[in-house]
Amino acid sequence: MASNGTTSNGTTANGDKPAASHRFDPNFTQAVIDNMGPNTTPRNREVLGALVKHIHDFSREVELTIDEWMAGVKFVNELGRIYADSKQTRNETHRICDILGLESLVDEIAHKIVSDGNLDPTSSSILGPFWSPNAPFRELGGSIMQDGIPPKGQVTKMHGVIRDMVTGAPIPGAVFDIWQASANGKYDFQDPDNQSPNNLRGKFRADEQGRYWFYCLHPTAYSLPRDGPSWDLLTMMDRHPMRPAHIHIMVTHPDYQGCTTQLYPNTDPWLTTDTVFAVKPDLVCDFKPLKGDNKATLELEYNVTIAPKSFGKGKL
Amino acid sequence: MASNGTTSNGTTANGDKPAASHRFDPNFTQAVIDNMGPNTTPRNREVLGALVKHIHDFSREVELTIDEWMAGVKFVNELGRIYADSKQTRNETHRICDILGLESLVDEIAHKIVSDGNLDPTSSSILGPFWSPNAPFRELGGSIMQDGIPPKGQVTKMHGVIRDMVTGAPIPGAVFDIWQASANGKYDFQDPDNQSPNNLRGKFRADEQGRYWFYCLHPTAYSLPRDGPSWDLLTMMDRHPMRPAHIHIMVTHPDYQGCTTQLYPNTDPWLTTDTVFAVKPDLVCDFKPLKGDNKATLELEYNVTIAPKSFGKGKL
Repeated sequence: MASNGTTSNGTTANGDKPAASHRFDPNFTQAVIDNMGPNTTPRNREVLGALVKHIHDFSREVELTIDEWMAGVKFVNELGRIYADSKQTRNETHRICDILGLESLVDEIAHKIVSDGNLDPTSSSILGPFWSPNAPFRELGGSIMQDGIPPKGQVTKMHGVIRDMVTGAPIPGAVFDIWQASANGKYDFQDPDNQSPNNLRGKFRADEQGRYWFYCLHPTAYSLPRDGPSWDLLTMMDRHPMRPAHIHIMVTHPDYQGCTTQLYPNTDPWLTTDTVFAVKPDLVCDFKPLKGDNKATLELEYNVTIAPKSFGKGKL
Repeated sequence: MASNGTTSNGTTANGDKPAASHRFDPNFTQAVIDNMGPNTTPRNREVLGALVKHIHDFSREVELTIDEWMAGVKFVNELGRIYADSKQTRNETHRICDILGLESLVDEIAHKIVSDGNLDPTSSSILGPFWSPNAPFRELGGSIMQDGIPPKGQVTKMHGVIRDMVTGAPIPGAVFDIWQASANGKYDFQDPDNQSPNNLRGKFRADEQGRYWFYCLHPTAYSLPRDGPSWDLLTMMDRHPMRPAHIHIMVTHPDYQGCTTQLYPNTDPWLTTDTVFAVKPDLVCDFKPLKGDNKATLELEYNVTIAPKSFGKGKL
């Protein structure tokens, strides 16, 4: 039972670190946390206890009003309604997490590899909603533009070497999975009138020297939807809905920690304000003019570094 | 753009107070906050900035996994689906807020009146989802049991005086609005087979001495639903779903700050573990045996104290 205390002692309920002084019942939050029973799992106790603490601290800090809280309840209800009504094709809850930076942060937490020296794997970035488990394997040197070159499309020869983070040795047989939107900013799933399934998707297996090469498009920036709760939230925050142009890649090998990430042209105007906060410096690339190849006008060299499965596990 | 920093300096992104040291990009959270544009309102900047900070701090503190985050997305989507599918009659989002203590906290924030001396108004408590704007006025001395006494119902004569917090003077004409569940634990809305609209609801206007009196039921404890997301969350936390028996009241007068609250019998076994954290000491009451009244076997005296409209506004 909470007290109706009119006093405030300026410490958090659990008393283990200083918090902003406030004038509300200092025992309330701990009472809610302590209502958890003995049979909750240690992890549930940790996660849900921290969730309660932060929800309460947030509410006290901003002195959240009843109207604001009720607007929040309405907002959350609308997220789930859209997901259900769209038959699970429009996940606004996921998108809200993205525009608040949560997916990118959770991705960082999951993939952080603390290296003691100069060893750094290629940075990870968020998977996003458009990866497909069904992308076909294609031959090295092939093209992922199975429906031809779209209007305004700029063909790029992409190539590089996949290496072991520790030894620097190439990794033969590593799988390089790529997917990207077409020049209209849409993925095959979203654009059935113009694209057949698996257009602009493909998997390539690195050769004996760890090399991959194929043809793809220079990527195109696109906007998140300009309606719905995520658009409303962006509007409240006076933010644009643009993602910088990017290519998704997922590099895997049975003996290595896989890398899921996104690559960005260094000329993109949205790099510093990506609406989902998924840009990291080592993922920004230089697309160069290519001569002497009648299939492509641009070239992108991108080398990927991945860590052995066992690396850093003791520290994670 | 976030850096891919492998360092951590152990301070929060905004650097204004100490935080738990962590090994993640120290600039990420502030970059997300700073992406808000110049045209967001000061209040939106304050609330949404604090929301981002607490969501991120929570995630880093518990090192939230991708699977846990995705389970959270799924959970939120399910809340809104149920609300839509139930045609807005089952608000699990509201209920989740209740069982995390959020509605009770927001209520405290809204109604805190800091008094300098011994002046305290009657504590507020949460409105809950069952108040009706359509409850009829009834005569002083009347009964809210318009459908008669239900099985196991114990009739109570409830009475008291409504007073001014500052002067102690009675407040003639104050409106005392009461609503309660029947002996089966259900409100009229939830129980159309047994109860007519406005059964166990009513408004009473205090007399010239600020007095009110009428007949109602001794309240009955009840359970939140034992299915759905809120039940799942209670189960994860090893908590029971019980609310202690309670009577809802809302006391209003044009010249006073209204009081919405709940009253609890001091014999209830769930007082200290109310699943929505809405019990405060001054709301716990003594129901006494009543003799000499052939309409009731119990008596509850409850005096209400409310603050003048102007009181404390400078401090809020």
